[in-house]
Amino acid sequence: MFFTFDGVDGVGKTTQIRLLCEWLRGRGLTVCECRDPGSTPLGECVRDIVLHAPDDTPISARSEMLLYMAARAQLVEEVIRPALARGEVVVSDRYLLANVVYQGHAGGLDPELVKSVGEAAVHGLHPDATFLLDMDPAEADSRMQRDRDRMESRGDDYRRRVREGFLAEARLVPERVHVVDAARTIEQVSGEIRGIAEKLI
Amino acid sequence: MFFTFDGVDGVGKTTQIRLLCEWLRGRGLTVCECRDPGSTPLGECVRDIVLHAPDDTPISARSEMLLYMAARAQLVEEVIRPALARGEVVVSDRYLLANVVYQGHAGGLDPELVKSVGEAAVHGLHPDATFLLDMDPAEADSRMQRDRDRMESRGDDYRRRVREGFLAEARLVPERVHVVDAARTIEQVSGEIRGIAEKLI
Repeated sequence: MFFTFDGVDGVGKTTQIRLLCEWLRGRGLTVCECRDPGSTPLGECVRDIVLHAPDDTPISARSEMLLYMAARAQLVEEVIRPALARGEVVVSDRYLLANVVYQGHAGGLDPELVKSVGEAAVHGLHPDATFLLDMDPAEADSRMQRDRDRMESRGDDYRRRVREGFLAEARLVPERVHVVDAARTIEQVSGEIRGIAEKLI
Repeated sequence: MFFTFDGVDGVGKTTQIRLLCEWLRGRGLTVCECRDPGSTPLGECVRDIVLHAPDDTPISARSEMLLYMAARAQLVEEVIRPALARGEVVVSDRYLLANVVYQGHAGGLDPELVKSVGEAAVHGLHPDATFLLDMDPAEADSRMQRDRDRMESRGDDYRRRVREGFLAEARLVPERVHVVDAARTIEQVSGEIRGIAEKLI
């Protein structure tokens, strides 16, 4: 079983991932938690580039998309496939959908192009369920209590396009991408996520 | 006009690129020399990862291919397209063909998959002519006078698959990929390359 979380920054992914993993472990399951990009030496290196590159290192939307894909290909081969083969439940903070939305819908690339490169990167491995935490981006932004990275410091318009992109993609595969209203209390949100996960396991 | 050079390591690309660029400049043309991966801050950073990653940073063929693509996308947008738009002649040390051969034919990925991701990376920008310097890989290897990087330190079998892959790809587009016998003298090789370039300019 492979779960992913996505949504605009500040929407509460970290908290909800922690709560779902605790609940899964409480049911006796072994959980492999990862983040995309990241969770491999190469992935962390790529993550550092895309999120913290200095201003004198321009990265186009196309190049950024391909860097994320490289990190993801390594994550799938080194971490996710082996964990699934051992019978573990994998929970990833972001996955391919984020690329389709950030560099596609919001970044100006054709979302279908991003999906087709994505197929080459993940080689058929898609999540069983994606929890899309949805909230007004301005409210999500106001909840963030740390310094913004390169992606997070983009403007309000960008964040609005990101939200709309996520919702548009969710409408295309409603059986797999679950839109969860994240403006409610932590308990309400985690309860809904657990309900969905329970039906799938 | 966009020229690229490719071939197994040690085949004399650096020397031949220098000679072609000198000859082009001697004819009054402005030449933009670049290397792929490289020639942008992001590209050099990616180059450092793929060629010098430590042993505790595994990079799969799929991930490696995508890293090269990210560097190339940035090279195309930041360097090659602007140079061509200014009317310059671009000469690149390697390009997409190297990925098709190293990670495809020699690395185990489907060459057609690499080409399709390549389309997403270069966005329609292909060389007018590619000079494929061809030589027995064992002889090319013996000519190298510096420490081997991560790609160069792979074995003889790998290098043989690389050579065969290059020749197979050249047979698919003989009008664009010119196979040049690089086992001859520097002058003979550069003379043939100049002859081909002269007809195209």
